[in-house]
Amino acid sequence: MNAVSPLAPAAFPDLPAVPGVALYAYAANLRYSGRPDLFLAVMAEGTTVGGVFTTSACASAPVDWCKQILSAGAARAVVCNAGNANAFTGAAGAASVHAEVEALRTSLGVPADQIYVASTGVIGEPLDDGQLVSALGHLVASDEAAWPEAAKAITTTDTFSKGAAADVPGTVVSGKVVGIAKGSGMIAPNMATMLGFLFTDVAATSEALQLAVSSATSESFNRITVDSDTSTSDTVLLFSTGAAGNDPIDGPDHPAWADFSSAVFEVCLDLAHQIVRDGEGATKFIEVHVEGAVSDESAEIVARSIADSPLVKTAMAAQDANWGRIVMAVGKAGEPADRDKLAIWIGEEQITEAGIVHPDYSEDRANMFLQEDEIVVRVDMGMGDGSASIWTCDLTHGYIEINAGYRS
Amino acid sequence: MNAVSPLAPAAFPDLPAVPGVALYAYAANLRYSGRPDLFLAVMAEGTTVGGVFTTSACASAPVDWCKQILSAGAARAVVCNAGNANAFTGAAGAASVHAEVEALRTSLGVPADQIYVASTGVIGEPLDDGQLVSALGHLVASDEAAWPEAAKAITTTDTFSKGAAADVPGTVVSGKVVGIAKGSGMIAPNMATMLGFLFTDVAATSEALQLAVSSATSESFNRITVDSDTSTSDTVLLFSTGAAGNDPIDGPDHPAWADFSSAVFEVCLDLAHQIVRDGEGATKFIEVHVEGAVSDESAEIVARSIADSPLVKTAMAAQDANWGRIVMAVGKAGEPADRDKLAIWIGEEQITEAGIVHPDYSEDRANMFLQEDEIVVRVDMGMGDGSASIWTCDLTHGYIEINAGYRS
Repeated sequence: MNAVSPLAPAAFPDLPAVPGVALYAYAANLRYSGRPDLFLAVMAEGTTVGGVFTTSACASAPVDWCKQILSAGAARAVVCNAGNANAFTGAAGAASVHAEVEALRTSLGVPADQIYVASTGVIGEPLDDGQLVSALGHLVASDEAAWPEAAKAITTTDTFSKGAAADVPGTVVSGKVVGIAKGSGMIAPNMATMLGFLFTDVAATSEALQLAVSSATSESFNRITVDSDTSTSDTVLLFSTGAAGNDPIDGPDHPAWADFSSAVFEVCLDLAHQIVRDGEGATKFIEVHVEGAVSDESAEIVARSIADSPLVKTAMAAQDANWGRIVMAVGKAGEPADRDKLAIWIGEEQITEAGIVHPDYSEDRANMFLQEDEIVVRVDMGMGDGSASIWTCDLTHGYIEINAGYRS
Repeated sequence: MNAVSPLAPAAFPDLPAVPGVALYAYAANLRYSGRPDLFLAVMAEGTTVGGVFTTSACASAPVDWCKQILSAGAARAVVCNAGNANAFTGAAGAASVHAEVEALRTSLGVPADQIYVASTGVIGEPLDDGQLVSALGHLVASDEAAWPEAAKAITTTDTFSKGAAADVPGTVVSGKVVGIAKGSGMIAPNMATMLGFLFTDVAATSEALQLAVSSATSESFNRITVDSDTSTSDTVLLFSTGAAGNDPIDGPDHPAWADFSSAVFEVCLDLAHQIVRDGEGATKFIEVHVEGAVSDESAEIVARSIADSPLVKTAMAAQDANWGRIVMAVGKAGEPADRDKLAIWIGEEQITEAGIVHPDYSEDRANMFLQEDEIVVRVDMGMGDGSASIWTCDLTHGYIEINAGYRS
């Protein structure tokens, strides 16, 4: 077990219960011992769902299953094990998913195509479904769990559990959105990231949930990177139990859409930032903000190029204002750029202006900003109005230690 | 100074002189001390040239200059300093290049637009051209240097000097191609890589040289990656003095084209491999070979995705056959792939077949191959006939040490 990230929140947040959602967590000893590693949420009849998944061409068996049942838009349960990703396991992997679904269909008495499945952990090892099905029996028979145990049960190399909540204020409908997530390495989401499970009591159609979770993910989970490596198992699901009893939100024209989609986004962004704060070996939480690009898309590509650059990330770890590496990363991004218009800041210290060092630049001041836990790198391309932020962490000996050390 | 890479060749190769090329090297103390850091080659009248440069949008002032004069296709000198890249230095950077060119134009009595300039080192620091011009005076007055000093003079974080030679066999024309290169970090060439200077006595037109160096680079320097970071200063130049006296090679229809372009490619590939062997912190030289892709381009993208993955590279460093990370990297590449057709080998050990673990797979045998200094990772996509190789190194504490440690 690695030490808790220095960037971790002081404590797991105090998350409210979501009416219509019952949580379960169980120490199944599937791979880890002495901690819950199996999570289940059972949801009220009529629960709707939206979700986004990895774009990996080598997606896991659980991702295949979830994609298959998502179009029906209904959910009664979501189950997740930690320690084995059930990815690259061929026909046996699909059989394991079906065994899980069958076990829960029988014990919970809910339709198979309303049971969502996720797995996280080692890729390529067969999942022992006999052991898993037996563990599921214990899980459904256990007492209801609270959010901290649920959040813990889905973690792998995470050094802290991740949860977030937001209220949907009561002008039109009143309710809440609560989510848990896991992720620490293999983080460069490309449509979704690792695992995020969000629950709301606000009634909404599955189409509205899909829209809310897709747009929130594109601006949150899809804007973080730890190591530029995209997982086979990325899954974000948003469930609505409808227990708030409101006229269901059916899309952007609904009067509560703005409040609801903002709450979903707030929870997604909070969880995404927590994943970066738990980036393997991280000692710095870094926002890379690019503005003045020819388009938002261009700004995002440039910001990602900076955020993924090992030379930029090691300079941040060293608290060294080696800003030439930022220039390099802008240059390699392949996007429209004019070297002689570039302006760069670290924290509030402006380093360059119009393609050369700013006359008032002080490396000492820049290094002061780098000594903080949270660093903002800002680049103005001077080309147009496009802007985007990407959140990342630094690259340290800790990352090598974790990933050249043991198999997570 | 870092310890010499464990993957370094036993000794600098014994390189022949190239008729028509005079070499100079000088310890100018521009940044480094106690070693040559300024290189000059003066070439015979009538020398032709071809070259390729970084595609960075933030290219250095010397790259701008070389691109500007390349269309004339003639060369009499190439000068290179190590320690300061003269990149992101605005108008002052261009002025420094002109000061260098003027100094050499006067002292050598050659046209300005036949003087090629390269710089490597820190980005964003102004180059003191007074000091440099003074050093150039000493350089041109010094005795001729041999290849080892010339190769040393262009290095920065390199732990060994890089040189290679190939004969052009005498069936049609007889001559040689000799090259030197530098590079260790910020290596993910995108049209060229870092610095490579090649010299031949075989007469060839500038158009033929351009074709030879472009195609050789695309299969050599452009197929290596240390850290996925593309330099602002990448430059590869191929000079022909014509001293061999042959009917000048003017393109692919010339009877000596195949022999000549093969020799150029051989030298480029040898130098490119040496750069990987000197990758910052490298302990493993890794060939990633992808076959069975839908096209060669697709194979290259997948191979690069594997070679650039920090999780694959740390697994290699750990000598851990954590092949799930290879699956991940195939999946994230965004290229056509069918998980259930993938076959993967480490060394000669087949790990997967048709999307699952091969029945005869032995992790012990795979780990034996990983204990070697040189590792081949092979992936058969099972989709078509496309193939490509990318060469890379592992990611170790040494990379962090070097890049979070001091400013190179």
